[in-house]
Amino acid sequence: MKFDAASLQRRFLALRENKLFETFVIFVIVFSALLIGAKTYAIPENAQTFLYLLDWGVTLFFLAEIIVRMIAEGSLRAFFRKGWNVFDFVIVVASLVPVQDSEAALLGRLLRVFRVLRLVSIIPELRILLNAFLQAIPRMGYVSLLMFVIFYIYAAIGSMFFHHINDDLWSNITISMLTLFRVATFEDWTDVMYETMTVYPLSWAYYLSFIFIVAFVFLNMMIGIVLETLQREHEEFDRSQGEGMAVEVDSIEQRTREMDQRLQRIESMVEALHERSSDTQSR
Amino acid sequence: MKFDAASLQRRFLALRENKLFETFVIFVIVFSALLIGAKTYAIPENAQTFLYLLDWGVTLFFLAEIIVRMIAEGSLRAFFRKGWNVFDFVIVVASLVPVQDSEAALLGRLLRVFRVLRLVSIIPELRILLNAFLQAIPRMGYVSLLMFVIFYIYAAIGSMFFHHINDDLWSNITISMLTLFRVATFEDWTDVMYETMTVYPLSWAYYLSFIFIVAFVFLNMMIGIVLETLQREHEEFDRSQGEGMAVEVDSIEQRTREMDQRLQRIESMVEALHERSSDTQSR
Amino acid sequence: MKFDAASLQRRFLALRENKLFETFVIFVIVFSALLIGAKTYAIPENAQTFLYLLDWGVTLFFLAEIIVRMIAEGSLRAFFRKGWNVFDFVIVVASLVPVQDSEAALLGRLLRVFRVLRLVSIIPELRILLNAFLQAIPRMGYVSLLMFVIFYIYAAIGSMFFHHINDDLWSNITISMLTLFRVATFEDWTDVMYETMTVYPLSWAYYLSFIFIVAFVFLNMMIGIVLETLQREHEEFDRSQGEGMAVEVDSIEQRTREMDQRLQRIESMVEALHERSSDTQSR
Amino acid sequence: MKFDAASLQRRFLALRENKLFETFVIFVIVFSALLIGAKTYAIPENAQTFLYLLDWGVTLFFLAEIIVRMIAEGSLRAFFRKGWNVFDFVIVVASLVPVQDSEAALLGRLLRVFRVLRLVSIIPELRILLNAFLQAIPRMGYVSLLMFVIFYIYAAIGSMFFHHINDDLWSNITISMLTLFRVATFEDWTDVMYETMTVYPLSWAYYLSFIFIVAFVFLNMMIGIVLETLQREHEEFDRSQGEGMAVEVDSIEQRTREMDQRLQRIESMVEALHERSSDTQSR
Repeated sequence: MKFDAASLQRRFLALRENKLFETFVIFVIVFSALLIGAKTYAIPENAQTFLYLLDWGVTLFFLAEIIVRMIAEGSLRAFFRKGWNVFDFVIVVASLVPVQDSEAALLGRLLRVFRVLRLVSIIPELRILLNAFLQAIPRMGYVSLLMFVIFYIYAAIGSMFFHHINDDLWSNITISMLTLFRVATFEDWTDVMYETMTVYPLSWAYYLSFIFIVAFVFLNMMIGIVLETLQREHEEFDRSQGEGMAVEVDSIEQRTREMDQRLQRIESMVEALHERSSDTQSR
Repeated sequence: MKFDAASLQRRFLALRENKLFETFVIFVIVFSALLIGAKTYAIPENAQTFLYLLDWGVTLFFLAEIIVRMIAEGSLRAFFRKGWNVFDFVIVVASLVPVQDSEAALLGRLLRVFRVLRLVSIIPELRILLNAFLQAIPRMGYVSLLMFVIFYIYAAIGSMFFHHINDDLWSNITISMLTLFRVATFEDWTDVMYETMTVYPLSWAYYLSFIFIVAFVFLNMMIGIVLETLQREHEEFDRSQGEGMAVEVDSIEQRTREMDQRLQRIESMVEALHERSSDTQSR
Repeated sequence: MKFDAASLQRRFLALRENKLFETFVIFVIVFSALLIGAKTYAIPENAQTFLYLLDWGVTLFFLAEIIVRMIAEGSLRAFFRKGWNVFDFVIVVASLVPVQDSEAALLGRLLRVFRVLRLVSIIPELRILLNAFLQAIPRMGYVSLLMFVIFYIYAAIGSMFFHHINDDLWSNITISMLTLFRVATFEDWTDVMYETMTVYPLSWAYYLSFIFIVAFVFLNMMIGIVLETLQREHEEFDRSQGEGMAVEVDSIEQRTREMDQRLQRIESMVEALHERSSDTQSR
Repeated sequence: MKFDAASLQRRFLALRENKLFETFVIFVIVFSALLIGAKTYAIPENAQTFLYLLDWGVTLFFLAEIIVRMIAEGSLRAFFRKGWNVFDFVIVVASLVPVQDSEAALLGRLLRVFRVLRLVSIIPELRILLNAFLQAIPRMGYVSLLMFVIFYIYAAIGSMFFHHINDDLWSNITISMLTLFRVATFEDWTDVMYETMTVYPLSWAYYLSFIFIVAFVFLNMMIGIVLETLQREHEEFDRSQGEGMAVEVDSIEQRTREMDQRLQRIESMVEALHERSSDTQSR
């Protein structure tokens, strides 16, 4: 039994494709998620050591798994060409940061949390969902920009007029935008309004116009997404099913044209026959 | 008048199918619901005894009704094959738990509450609605999983950083997920945010990113359901109405093909006639 | 110039159809709405007397207007056959209740408020909108019933377990349903939950399951309405536009059938000609 | 190098069409937005002077840019015929109000905020979005009117019955409408309800009926907008794609009619031939 590179690659490829191995990887990811969850509970000292060891076990397993996949792929370039591989690699390497050191400990633990995201990269259906989400981002770009402009203008006006009323809510444009986001979620927005209405009794117009405009833009954004998705689905459906009839109508159109030409030829010949026959008879 | 099994079954089948009997069962269910409601009010002792007797009356009626349906069905196996029968049986048997014993009393009363659900099993329209809801659950599976992953990651980060700020909201991952659900419903979420912003001034980014991601995934889930329902309706509609035209176009296609073949035969014969006629004339 | 009944009817019919008169009625309705609004402000005594006189003026005008429409219609039966006429009549008669008497004053003022609804009965577009709303009520019937069953079961459980925790929120099934409606609108629902969680730590499951079920049923209700409206619009559209092509395809189908029959006759005749020609030639 | 009017216009037209110039204008707008934002922060005196100078720089640049566009357009009438030019002109002229004078300072700063809106007028995609929003306003007119009528009636009833309970919330019809808008956004609406329920225990019916009616009208408004947008998209799609098939079916219809006429002529001639042939043979 030789251990040359090619046979190793073949073995690792077989391992990577193995359904049982994939299930085991999913199990380890879920287990690592539970570990992360367990660490947020107050646990006795010795259990903590045990968790620490388990955590390192998971980390090493992830490292081994990604090396298996790297070798199975054949070349590093081929491996890193796939976005999801880069995603997995970054998560695995990031969790190699030691968690012992008190300063980096929080960072190390934070990076370990993102290992749960490997669930997304390993389950195809979740990968499709996430891709759909990423694709939806650009098409919302201009609506988001418009929304930002509206927030910016209202925040500028708000911090200009209200900053002396409540400095916690309106001290500068950033804080004002946060306050306006709060108003947009209807979270105790009347408390904010009643406060400014004591100084500017007509300031309810500021809040109501803001709520109406934001609700309106948001509604349009939602409808826009639904319509775009519907249209795409429609086009795909038309391409798959609807063309059946279109092709048939096309073929009918083609055949009637041929039939028409054939009929013209027949007519001219029958006409000639008819004339001769008339000639013969009249003779 | 003999009381053999077969005639009994026939009688009970007739009873089960009786529209009046069904209306009476619905009336008893609504009455039992009112009984349950009445018991939540503070009522005098003797009225309570009266309610207790009424309750046993309803319980016995339900028992009798389900036995009638069992005998009417013919065999127990046939009876239990229908999901809604099992549903009814479990509810009726569960409400046989005595309510007198002080310990089991609350359980007994709780089980009686579910008798209102028999309204769903007896009214066909509600049964269809509930079936539609049950069917919708699996298709939301992966989106729910993705949502859970997002909540889990944010809860882990939250309990990691904020547990020393407010132990009631962020002590462990379960409590943190509950707090995040509260944030997702916009319920006093700014109170939660302002508290953590006193320690981490940039923690608004944590809340805003969470709100945007959750709102986005939720929006996609909703759109997904609407689209799937629309598509299913569309396909049914196409199958029922749309095919009318497709069938017609098919028959036109078929007929033009036959006509074309007939025309070819005519043309060849007319051509032959034409040539002979020319021959005759030129002779 | 005679004042017999028929000429009076003709004159009043002309008045009712008069566009200027209709505009004036709308103006009076809006004016009466402003009167109602004005009376909610603190106003000096003499202004109040003036408002009181104006109010009686409006009341008398409405009375005159409805009498004009009654006479214009010809018979009382014809007048009361139209739902909107009954609607107007009830509103006008109700506002004849004297507002002076201190006991009936509030009732009288309340009834005057509904005069604003005459705006709905006089503007056709609003009438169409309201009709659409009334038509939508029955189709929501079963979903509303299911929603009520869910609220009822949860309210029964809630008042059973929580009434000793907070009697203001859970004392009986009616109060519990109101509390659950509050939870369904996310209004300080965590305050309700945290309170019961001090006694039953797992009661969050009660609230979360309730929120998920209600949100789900509500979502389905909304989608159901949208789909039904869409389908109705679709069918109308198909009937108006789509049938254009269907009719054309029908006529093509009919014509090709006739053409095919004609071709068969031609073929049989040409065949006969062909055979005779062959006979002639072979002779 | 002469500086006559025509060559100046040509140069300015070239400048206006220049992509680089447009990008620079966008940069200046974003920069002016940042200036506005910066001024809401507490800044040292000398920085404030610097910001003041920058602000005047931006103002002068905007003035120069709009003059360039005016000259490029050729005539003032042509310039002001475009709505967006008027929009830009008003914004630029408004920001010429001096900000130094303490009384007009706030107004001057306020007017400068609206310069951010120039981002909308210069980016075509945002202009399209805003146009879509403006177009959607009239079609919501009647639903808004109905909503207003509902709010008005409920506000009148509310201020009539509840003004002596809480004068801050129900003192007059305007305040009552604001309170009802708060109830419609579910913002602490139970606090409002519980307060009035202490005097009128059945006043929950007032709030619940209001919430149901408003939610229902709002839902219909949303569905109405979606349906209208869908229909418009549908019609455009049908006009662009769907007509392809309709045109083809039209041409088939036309051709089969011609073929049918040709066949009738052929049939009559062949019939004549057939008869003569029969005559010949029978002779």
